[in-house]
Amino acid sequence: MKASQFLFATLKETPNDADIISSQLMVRAGLIRKLASGLYVWLPMGLRVLKRVERIVREEMERIDSQELLMPVTQPGELWHESGRWEDYGAELLRFKDRHSRDFVLGPTHEEVITDIARNELKSYKQLPVSFYQIQTKFRDEIRPRFGVMRAREFTMKDAYSFHIDTHSLAQTYQDMYDAYSRIFSRLGLDFRAVQADTGSIGGFASHEFHVLADSGEDDIAFSSESDFAANVELAEAICTSTRPAATQARSNVATPNMPTCEAVAEHLGIALTQTVKTLIVKGSHSEDNPDAPKFVALVLRGDHTLNEIKAEKIAAVHTPLTMASEDELKQLGLIKGYISVDLPIPTYVDRAAAALANFVSGANIEHQHTTGMNWERDAKIAEVVDIRNVVDGDPSPDGKGVIQIKRGIEVGHIFQLGDKYSKALGCSVLGKEGKPVTLMMGCYGIGVSRIIAAAIEQNHDDKGIIWAKTDNPADSIAPFYVAIVPLKSKTGEAEQKAEELYQMLKSRGINVLLDDRDERAGVKFADLELIGIPHRIVVSERNLAENKYEYADRTAEDKQLLSLEEVLAKF
Amino acid sequence: MKASQFLFATLKETPNDADIISSQLMVRAGLIRKLASGLYVWLPMGLRVLKRVERIVREEMERIDSQELLMPVTQPGELWHESGRWEDYGAELLRFKDRHSRDFVLGPTHEEVITDIARNELKSYKQLPVSFYQIQTKFRDEIRPRFGVMRAREFTMKDAYSFHIDTHSLAQTYQDMYDAYSRIFSRLGLDFRAVQADTGSIGGFASHEFHVLADSGEDDIAFSSESDFAANVELAEAICTSTRPAATQARSNVATPNMPTCEAVAEHLGIALTQTVKTLIVKGSHSEDNPDAPKFVALVLRGDHTLNEIKAEKIAAVHTPLTMASEDELKQLGLIKGYISVDLPIPTYVDRAAAALANFVSGANIEHQHTTGMNWERDAKIAEVVDIRNVVDGDPSPDGKGVIQIKRGIEVGHIFQLGDKYSKALGCSVLGKEGKPVTLMMGCYGIGVSRIIAAAIEQNHDDKGIIWAKTDNPADSIAPFYVAIVPLKSKTGEAEQKAEELYQMLKSRGINVLLDDRDERAGVKFADLELIGIPHRIVVSERNLAENKYEYADRTAEDKQLLSLEEVLAKF
Repeated sequence: MKASQFLFATLKETPNDADIISSQLMVRAGLIRKLASGLYVWLPMGLRVLKRVERIVREEMERIDSQELLMPVTQPGELWHESGRWEDYGAELLRFKDRHSRDFVLGPTHEEVITDIARNELKSYKQLPVSFYQIQTKFRDEIRPRFGVMRAREFTMKDAYSFHIDTHSLAQTYQDMYDAYSRIFSRLGLDFRAVQADTGSIGGFASHEFHVLADSGEDDIAFSSESDFAANVELAEAICTSTRPAATQARSNVATPNMPTCEAVAEHLGIALTQTVKTLIVKGSHSEDNPDAPKFVALVLRGDHTLNEIKAEKIAAVHTPLTMASEDELKQLGLIKGYISVDLPIPTYVDRAAAALANFVSGANIEHQHTTGMNWERDAKIAEVVDIRNVVDGDPSPDGKGVIQIKRGIEVGHIFQLGDKYSKALGCSVLGKEGKPVTLMMGCYGIGVSRIIAAAIEQNHDDKGIIWAKTDNPADSIAPFYVAIVPLKSKTGEAEQKAEELYQMLKSRGINVLLDDRDERAGVKFADLELIGIPHRIVVSERNLAENKYEYADRTAEDKQLLSLEEVLAKF
Repeated sequence: MKASQFLFATLKETPNDADIISSQLMVRAGLIRKLASGLYVWLPMGLRVLKRVERIVREEMERIDSQELLMPVTQPGELWHESGRWEDYGAELLRFKDRHSRDFVLGPTHEEVITDIARNELKSYKQLPVSFYQIQTKFRDEIRPRFGVMRAREFTMKDAYSFHIDTHSLAQTYQDMYDAYSRIFSRLGLDFRAVQADTGSIGGFASHEFHVLADSGEDDIAFSSESDFAANVELAEAICTSTRPAATQARSNVATPNMPTCEAVAEHLGIALTQTVKTLIVKGSHSEDNPDAPKFVALVLRGDHTLNEIKAEKIAAVHTPLTMASEDELKQLGLIKGYISVDLPIPTYVDRAAAALANFVSGANIEHQHTTGMNWERDAKIAEVVDIRNVVDGDPSPDGKGVIQIKRGIEVGHIFQLGDKYSKALGCSVLGKEGKPVTLMMGCYGIGVSRIIAAAIEQNHDDKGIIWAKTDNPADSIAPFYVAIVPLKSKTGEAEQKAEELYQMLKSRGINVLLDDRDERAGVKFADLELIGIPHRIVVSERNLAENKYEYADRTAEDKQLLSLEEVLAKF
């Protein structure tokens, strides 16, 4: 491609409304433009990147015999009524009526449509297992679109769906997808982790998220220093390997004026924060239907730990969603905020780490006082020892190998064993081996194709602009151009001619090459190419040609190299 | 691809709701499935065809340096308010509100969005000319979706837009697009015509439609037997080469009881239909603003000709839209339906062919009577001789070469010199050579990508199923598979093994080959492959292998051939 025939839409200024670095760089490098809140145009430069990602995704889906099809973006409301999601799905589901006042939705996902296809087209267990995928425009009416294409309203997604006669077959295809996803992100050169994810309300089937690691990520990922273990912090089990020492100190109240936090108390008493506990009072699951459940419940954590709400909600006695008691409610219970004891008239659920303490410090239930020398059983009752805290760096890995490390991640893929949720609701069955109808098992598998690009940039960039990840196979690089040739203006035209010759040579070798023949100063071109992140740059100048040399620069290296034509060609 | 790993969704029965042959065959061959009125799923078999068409379109757009980008399907209503089309566009424009009650549309076309991009990104005449295209999902809320994917609500379109400093540059790019479109349809192996089209209300700029010829087409295309001339019948000029003979007969009324048509009168009088005329009374363009215009106007045509409404509407004295006078209005004018004369008190516009007649027969303005021996000027006044009829087979071609032939066509492409309609409305200008802002000239260029497939099938099929057009380059064939290998069940497994070997050989040569390894009877496979229209079939049987032969059949040939392996390979 010649730059003079291509839209370079680079910007010097950072756009006001781009809220994260990837969004800023994508707009500045001319990959995208914002059309309206959450709606983006992929300019030619950006679409080249998107297509390259799509190609790799497609190749890996084909490799596991997933069949590509294309479903409409607009879907009849009836199918969503049938699955129950017309009511269940929130306002992110854009519902509209056509000119005949019939219900439609703009598809945020396609479980209903694919299940409708499967129930019509699949007749026999002999056709199974089978999986279908599409790469397509999705729409989600985000209340507050942000982070550029990362949380846009319209975006490109690869969604795949598989159908099975039983859970064993589902597990096999799930593993194939897991492997395909791992290959996709590996080929893209991304630092990623496949992490165990919450299966939500559907049940006990497996689910993994694929996260690109980046400091700006929205999710905390816990993974082992020594094994494959990785989980969303929301889910990662907190292991406690220590056992409770004997009670040796007597219980005694001490003055802690205006010290409602464990940190202040520990400092005041000159003890470790890990020797203190904090007590949180939350609503219990008591209701008319559940009259035996408590109205309030206490949750106790070690002073240095934080509550994991998802884990806490799994305690039957705890109200969902998790709701803290108000100050009024605390007063009614006779408790004083910041000074709550562990010796309480309500069921007390104690985190594993807090339960392993002896001679610890808690609130005294008296304003401006704490109690030292507290000991479980002797001084306070435990309803149940539970795992209700977030794991932290250095925790033992739940699989027993190494210790937990925590990094931030951006979710770019999600695979899910759905079970029969949709096939049951829509009546999707085939004749099984015994000649009887069998409701199918389903899996669904998504990749945020446009999101990958933002995530890749969050992971790799510098103050000059985008850095596209290095890939094992150069052809897998998703840089819009792999190498740029820049001729410096020459009086004789020799530099321009040699640049053109080199361009033709690389092009004929199938290299994704750009000839920057724009009528711009060299400095402007260099800055543009760095902003866009072209991995390799070759400058052709009269001066260097006098010695038969070309100046080569790697986007990520400080040094430039003077190379002969042969050496340049050998590089690609 | 192995058929056992691919969704064959062929149907024996013709679906009830498929209204034309292409729709029937596409559903029966398992290319598509109807999800709801005007919404189709492209099954794996169909998507392969769609992708092949897309590839050829893309290659030819790249060849003329058009740059691919991707605009959102959902578009902010504001842009449509700005262009004025929010009001002008009919109910086919699906308008909706997002969760914040802001106006949006589902894009049926993207002039507004691309003009918004151009006004932001293009700064100087140096960036021009430039053209952008996308291949993307479009939505048009048809009141009565029909003809399968031909007139669907959601469909795939290639839309391109070009920007220019002046009309000269626009005309050049328009010609490039014209040539690119011609190459696309030629490569697809389609019998097509580029025809002059109506530029509608926008003005005097050029427009061409590209039609695939097929008996089932919705449009009548007139083209010359000897030149490149082709035009939609709506527009084709009707030439009259004969001059009016002298008036030799006297005017005389004859009885024509219950004969309100020219055909009946001609038969009754024993004269040629071409010697009769018919008179149509339509509303004139009289109004409060236009008080001098007539309230009614007469249009006179030769008895064998039909009125072309679009041409008639171009007469200033005629009301737009064309409106026939009611029987009451005829009575008020003193005229009798079926027996209207040409000797009238209102302005009489006479078609060229009718104006060239002498001694002709018209109505007598008396019930059940006609007048013979009528002659213009002597017996009736002509307001103006006009071209208001549809051309017919055998008419002289307007370019003077050959005669007109008429065939039916399906519109698959449309190119249009828009001028400054959108750039003016949206304020899209760049700095011109003189440093002053210049409003840009625009062109737009569409191809109905999904529609092409239906049109190709309308043009080529037989009672067994689809016939994909032969292409000069086999790689351009849009058949989902180019060749199918069918092993006949053998006891030793030799046929299956040799079929697999041949499959691998063809695959390694880059041939788009299918191995039909399904567990089905040979007859079922043959019928499926013919229905789907696979151009080449190779049957591998134990019997023929004994003589080292393979049975080769062309989809369109009656005979089968026994070929050696070398001969088979030489074919591909």
